Formats: sequence, C-alpha cells, structure tokens
Amino acid sequence: MEINSPTNERIKNWAKLQQKKYRDQSGQFLIEGEHLIGEALQAGVVEHLLMEAGRINPFASQCEAIVCSEIVMRKLSTNVSGAWLIAVCSQKSVPAQSGLRTVVLDGVQDPGNVGTIIRTAVAFGFDQVLLSPDCADVYNEKCVRSTQGALFHIAIQRTELLGALSALKEEGVMVIGTALHKAQPLAQLAVVEKVAIVLGNEGQGVRPETLEICDQRALIEMFSFESLNVAVAAGICLYRYRRKA
Amino acid sequence: MEINSPTNERIKNWAKLQQKKYRDQSGQFLIEGEHLIGEALQAGVVEHLLMEAGRINPFASQCEAIVCSEIVMRKLSTNVSGAWLIAVCSQKSVPAQSGLRTVVLDGVQDPGNVGTIIRTAVAFGFDQVLLSPDCADVYNEKCVRSTQGALFHIAIQRTELLGALSALKEEGVMVIGTALHKAQPLAQLAVVEKVAIVLGNEGQGVRPETLEICDQRALIEMFSFESLNVAVAAGICLYRYRRKA
Repeated sequence: MEINSPTNERIKNWAKLQQKKYRDQSGQFLIEGEHLIGEALQAGVVEHLLMEAGRINPFASQCEAIVCSEIVMRKLSTNVSGAWLIAVCSQKSVPAQSGLRTVVLDGVQDPGNVGTIIRTAVAFGFDQVLLSPDCADVYNEKCVRSTQGALFHIAIQRTELLGALSALKEEGVMVIGTALHKAQPLAQLAVVEKVAIVLGNEGQGVRPETLEICDQRALIEMFSFESLNVAVAAGICLYRYRRKA
Repeated sequence: MEINSPTNERIKNWAKLQQKKYRDQSGQFLIEGEHLIGEALQAGVVEHLLMEAGRINPFASQCEAIVCSEIVMRKLSTNVSGAWLIAVCSQKSVPAQSGLRTVVLDGVQDPGNVGTIIRTAVAFGFDQVLLSPDCADVYNEKCVRSTQGALFHIAIQRTELLGALSALKEEGVMVIGTALHKAQPLAQLAVVEKVAIVLGNEGQGVRPETLEICDQRALIEMFSFESLNVAVAAGICLYRYRRKA
C-alpha cells in the first residue's frame, strides 16, 4: 500500500496522535526511529509501520510497511527534520510481574523526566511504575524517546495514588517517600525487597497527603542545600533498592 | 534607558548570543527568569538587566534595568512565549577551590544532560567540572536552565582531557571512568576524597583513550542489561563520592 497525500483520512487521524486527547481516545501512539520501533515490534505493540518511499524496510521479515511520501512522513513526525520510519502502536501495557519493586510518580510534569525514570526502573529491575493522574503522559513523544524503549518492558499504570499505596502497604510493601524535611538519610534506611519509592513534582516534591501515608521518608544526603533533578534523585534511590538476582 | 526597536544595534548583538559562535567570541551569554537571574546577580556576572515595559524590577536595589518593548524581549528570548526579564551575563568562571572532587565529561552532547550533571555536582560538593572540547556548550540556554543556577557555584573548564587527567593523577587524585566492560562494580570501589569521575557520550560512553588513563573503571550494577541516562549515571556515582562535611 502507498499513501502520498497528507490529507488522506488515515494519515489525518494518525497525525492527531501527537495530541494526548487523541492518544487517550484511541489507545494508540506514534513512535519514530529504528531502535524504538525494533523494541515495539518485539513487544508486539506495532499496529502499522509507515516508511518513506525509496527506503528499505529493516523489519521486512516481521512487518509489512505502508509506503508514504516525504510530505506524509513529515506530517506524522514531531521531529523538525522529519522521520523515515514511524510506527502506530497500541498502548498495551506489560502486566506487573510480582509487585515487589514499584516506582511511584506523584505529579512529575516533564515528559523527559518520566521517560528517564521508566528507563532507570527497568535497568534496576523494578516491576511496575505507578503515575498519578497529573503526571506527564507516558505516550508523549519526548517521554517515549527518553525511555529508550524501556516502556515496553515494565508494567505502567496511571492511578489515584492514595488507594494504590494503601493496597501496596497491605501487601507488606515498604513505601518510601523522598522528602527534604522530617526525613531520614537514605543510606540509613533498611534495604528491603518489597519496596515502593515515591518521587514528586519538579517544583513541589511529593504531595503532603501522599507523604502522609508513606512508611518512611528518605532524604538524599547533599552537601549544599540544593535540589536534585527528579530523575537523578530517582536514579540514586532505585540503585539502592535495585534487584540483584 | 528604554529600547523599543528590535533593530537597535545592541539588541541585535545580544540576540546573537543565542548562538555559540557569538557567545565564544564575546564571552557573554543570556539567561531568563527571576530565579536564575537572582543567582547570577549574587555571583556578580550580570552585565545588563533587560525588563519588559510595564513590569517591576524585582532586583531594583541591586541592578538597574533597561526597559524594552515586548517585541525586543521576544527577539532575545529562546522561549516561544517570550520572557519579561533577561540578563546579559559574562562567562566568568568560579575558580576551583580545592581540586579534591572533579567531574569529567567526555563528549556529553546533550545540553540538558550537561546542565543536570553540573547541578548534581554542586549538590554533592564537587569542586570542579572539566569538559572535553566536544561537549555541549555550558552557556547554551537549555544547559544553563538545567543547572538551575548551579553553574555560578562551581569551577567549570573546557579542556583537553588527557593532559588534565594526567595532571590530576600526579596530584594523587583517583581517576574513575564509568564503563560497561572490564569494569568493577561501583559498590566495590574504595571511597576516597581525591577523586575524578569520568562520564561519557550518550551513545558511545567514555572514549577508549580516556578510559586508558583512568585508574579504575566503574560499572553501575544493573539488573537488566540496559543503559542508563548519563545524568542518572552521574548522580549515582557522585552520590557515592559526595563531600560529607
């Protein structure tokens, strides 16, 4: 199949996936680039593969490509210089494997931070990521890119945190909130397996009502009273509670 | 003083500071926003403060503002929605205080990563940041923003790394390169005070020739063989070698 017109109905609909509203409605999202698309194919979430005319499909054995004109590819890409390979994917989440290790994001706004934290969670063997409803959209292009494909390897759920954290506590999970005040130095907290690490908004940190139900508050020991980028703070905490075998 | 025309000679020259070439030539750079400008004033690097007409200068007691029209402010701002307060600053670096703790960046390309690492270095009490000539420009707007003002609190130097690392080694500094192969787990490395931590390019990591002269190679212990964002990796390493008192 070939599509040359940017006003083609399917193209117009797929281009709408650059907006969260339409991603939510359709349960689809767009990704660009060979590496990410390779990961998405392995995860079985690719619905359509779109390729610029004149290129060779690197995934020909796995998935047929719809050949599109350059102008169509430009319309679908969020990159100023366009993309030659784009996939329409379904937001099919990996089921949680054990619920042993959970990362919890409370109002993290920047899609790059959300994506980087998802990538870090996978690297350190965490099982799931819970996001409060006001976090950045996981399927935002910048977030997906920052995950480097890790979003296809971990359970991700957007949910009200208070109920979710209470349920984790009932299962014996230690819920640790990161905080700057009334908190214990991270290095002094016990290392346990059933753990949930809560990280907060870039400006305000974890909400007081969320901190309220945490079992522990962890302070990352700093020399000067500065703050850390939330993805850096996440990295330090997740490294400490990483899965070892 | 008031400037209303975007074709004013001074405005045209300052607008050029959005490009690295002109920042290098003039030794100046632009910053936006009250928080950053407050830090820059404290550091004594503000040469000119520019404010949109009709606003109140929050730093009136420290620095007179040149009042500019909205169109002038838009021309100087890298933000799509403009900025109401902009400062022209001089690239005056803080002198290194002790050389005890050094962060070394070898080809880190993304200005956001460079800025986040500078912010983290200050938080953990590092004394200086060395950047290879091919790293992103520290005075890039995105980098400056990611530092959250930390660039005004730490010695930063762009230099050829091989010579600089040799000099550090002669002073008894332990040079640790991050690596994925032929490396020791980070948690097994001795914690010393005189340390330099070398982080590499987002795709290729630390250059082989740089790794060659490192005393140790550190591997951040991951569960799945994924990679980490370089600013996250830096956070984990710098936290371990942080200044404690």
